[in-house]
Amino acid sequence: MTQETIAAETFEATGDFPIDELLSDGITNTPPSFVRAILKAASDPNVTSFAGGLPNPISFPQEDLLESMQRVVSEHGAEAFQYSATAGLAGLRAWIANRYNKRFGTDYVADDVLITTGSQQVLDLLGKVLLDKGDGVIVEKPTYLAAIQAFALHQPVFREVELTEDGLNIDELNAALDAGAKMIYLIPNFQNPTGLTYSAEGRRQVREALADRNIVVVEDDPYGELRFEGESLPYIGGTALPHGVIMGSFSKTVTPGFRMGYLLTKDHELLKKLNTAKEAADLHTNVFSQFVILDYLTHHDLDEHLVKIRDLYRTQAAAMTDAMEEYFPEGVSFTKPEGGMFLWATLPEGISTMDLFDKALERNVAFVPGDPFYAEPGKRSTMRLNFTNADEETIRDGIKRLAEVIAEAL
Amino acid sequence: MTQETIAAETFEATGDFPIDELLSDGITNTPPSFVRAILKAASDPNVTSFAGGLPNPISFPQEDLLESMQRVVSEHGAEAFQYSATAGLAGLRAWIANRYNKRFGTDYVADDVLITTGSQQVLDLLGKVLLDKGDGVIVEKPTYLAAIQAFALHQPVFREVELTEDGLNIDELNAALDAGAKMIYLIPNFQNPTGLTYSAEGRRQVREALADRNIVVVEDDPYGELRFEGESLPYIGGTALPHGVIMGSFSKTVTPGFRMGYLLTKDHELLKKLNTAKEAADLHTNVFSQFVILDYLTHHDLDEHLVKIRDLYRTQAAAMTDAMEEYFPEGVSFTKPEGGMFLWATLPEGISTMDLFDKALERNVAFVPGDPFYAEPGKRSTMRLNFTNADEETIRDGIKRLAEVIAEAL
Repeated sequence: MTQETIAAETFEATGDFPIDELLSDGITNTPPSFVRAILKAASDPNVTSFAGGLPNPISFPQEDLLESMQRVVSEHGAEAFQYSATAGLAGLRAWIANRYNKRFGTDYVADDVLITTGSQQVLDLLGKVLLDKGDGVIVEKPTYLAAIQAFALHQPVFREVELTEDGLNIDELNAALDAGAKMIYLIPNFQNPTGLTYSAEGRRQVREALADRNIVVVEDDPYGELRFEGESLPYIGGTALPHGVIMGSFSKTVTPGFRMGYLLTKDHELLKKLNTAKEAADLHTNVFSQFVILDYLTHHDLDEHLVKIRDLYRTQAAAMTDAMEEYFPEGVSFTKPEGGMFLWATLPEGISTMDLFDKALERNVAFVPGDPFYAEPGKRSTMRLNFTNADEETIRDGIKRLAEVIAEAL
Repeated sequence: MTQETIAAETFEATGDFPIDELLSDGITNTPPSFVRAILKAASDPNVTSFAGGLPNPISFPQEDLLESMQRVVSEHGAEAFQYSATAGLAGLRAWIANRYNKRFGTDYVADDVLITTGSQQVLDLLGKVLLDKGDGVIVEKPTYLAAIQAFALHQPVFREVELTEDGLNIDELNAALDAGAKMIYLIPNFQNPTGLTYSAEGRRQVREALADRNIVVVEDDPYGELRFEGESLPYIGGTALPHGVIMGSFSKTVTPGFRMGYLLTKDHELLKKLNTAKEAADLHTNVFSQFVILDYLTHHDLDEHLVKIRDLYRTQAAAMTDAMEEYFPEGVSFTKPEGGMFLWATLPEGISTMDLFDKALERNVAFVPGDPFYAEPGKRSTMRLNFTNADEETIRDGIKRLAEVIAEAL
């Protein structure tokens, strides 16, 4: 059948039809991602960018994944290309449950797992399922900016609790809980943006504060497998609190391009609602990619693959902190992460890292100013630095130039 | 590094922590998909199921897609596995714009296109960007049930407008517009669930009624390329109205497993907000699959591939309508679709197809009762039948048994 070409009519005036009148309150209150805007500015090949959040391509097992694709087509055929179940592939859900059980001595089963389109989608689903306008949500201060974005759509009240070297400021946490909140959102390992990790004692204190509260306890853990120093610590909630939710992802361990995340929870009433929200959001996650990831995990030892990534990130993190110790002027402090992809520098109060950004860009070095990582708007003297996407030489050189920019501003 | 196994603590009582108190009003008002529940009941291999909505596997060019995967890995490498732009691959967006321009004489460009995680995600994004609690949204009566689900999360007021053989009941449409609505959601070609297609005159009438209104006009067109009779007709809105949005998908033409949908709109203010909502929902759509689809479309003639699908569906639709003419008792009417995957049968008033469902299942034949396709709850005497997933013999035999069940109920 040939398709005829029909000249479409075109409307004339648009001035009479303002879209503003049609937009929801939620979207009007939701900021576009500042990082994504910055990444454009930092994409000039002459710029040493510590602004990104990209895993190193060493983490993508490209050829192994291609082999898995061939096996999936030959072993599963049409099933891998057809519509599929909202919850995700049973085999992949079981693999994830087993992995957590092995690592943490938990008793998760496949039915405790929901496969999502990146772990970003978990944030979207949690916002939908829990938050009405004005509801309280507790977040770390600072926190992951795309979580602020996902929750903001529902116009909640953000209750920020100061992040410390060990975890949370417990007095602030109790005050936030007393003020009321449906959900607390935490990133206990190598936090984005700070690189901080809750200590065993810090976790215990937070768990204790939450134990007699009716609240959904969300722990976002995209980097948990990327610990390059120290020992893994148990979650705060997980199976230890009634509404514990753990978020995970294959983005930092296999590939972010597949958008493959997941959540684990023993709260099946909550899970059922998250499943309904998932169904309405995109029916199910790319099932071909689910088959490919499962095949890859079945035919390869993930732990062997992770060693490569951890070794690289350990070296890169050390290159950055060593250079900071050498070049950064007095009065600037920074974190020393035990894993993950980021660290956090704090300048003397009163120095706006947002103002510093353009000056750094003139010297061909980029970072993310602290501002977008706080639910409360305001000028900040902090910055996030990513260490996973440059070699040691480039890191050293970039930090040196950044140090000069900072020194001039002091 | 070895991961130690730490015995997790487990909570004791849950009774004191009711999740109901924490759930949002939105999710409490959102029904889980009735069809997905039904599909389980109909998955018994002995059941002839007309309840599904699955494209025929003939539409999946598995081997060609596998070849594309090999090319993508060798030509693009890490880029195809890394994080990517929210809007989608520029090349794929340009391909889509050109396809529409060729078919409809429009002037879309790549920047008018947003790639989404299935076209279901477009519904999710539109709901977020436009609907606050109590806002009006106009839908066809009946309409696509997952659109009701996606919009319901925002607690809008659904204004249903009767679908006719030619399009919409214009008096009802004007009344709905007068009552107020931010969006009208239409499926002009081989509608799901009815299989009806708006005539050229029907489209003109609807366009005229909408022309002086400030409203987002959404046309969902997943089956547009699957016309097996008659000629393509221009969209109602598209480029012809200021806030026209066209929704499309590769689910019915290449593969649903990849969850690859898109929207086109010339309204860049609206598009910018949809982009922000997309960013917060899942950052971007699976970029490896975007590369694969683009490579496939570049190396193959989609029109040649579509001929196969259309020929099969034409035969299957004819088998179903022929059998219905032969076996269905008097008083039952049904649509004769010019494309797509579904047709719609209407029984005499007062007969509940929901009550009929269990009786049909006893005779090993399944359909979807009309009830979930209406925004307004109530018992219906209509049913949706899918014709794309059984051979002619099976269709004929299944319709015969269904006719017997109906005859007994009359």
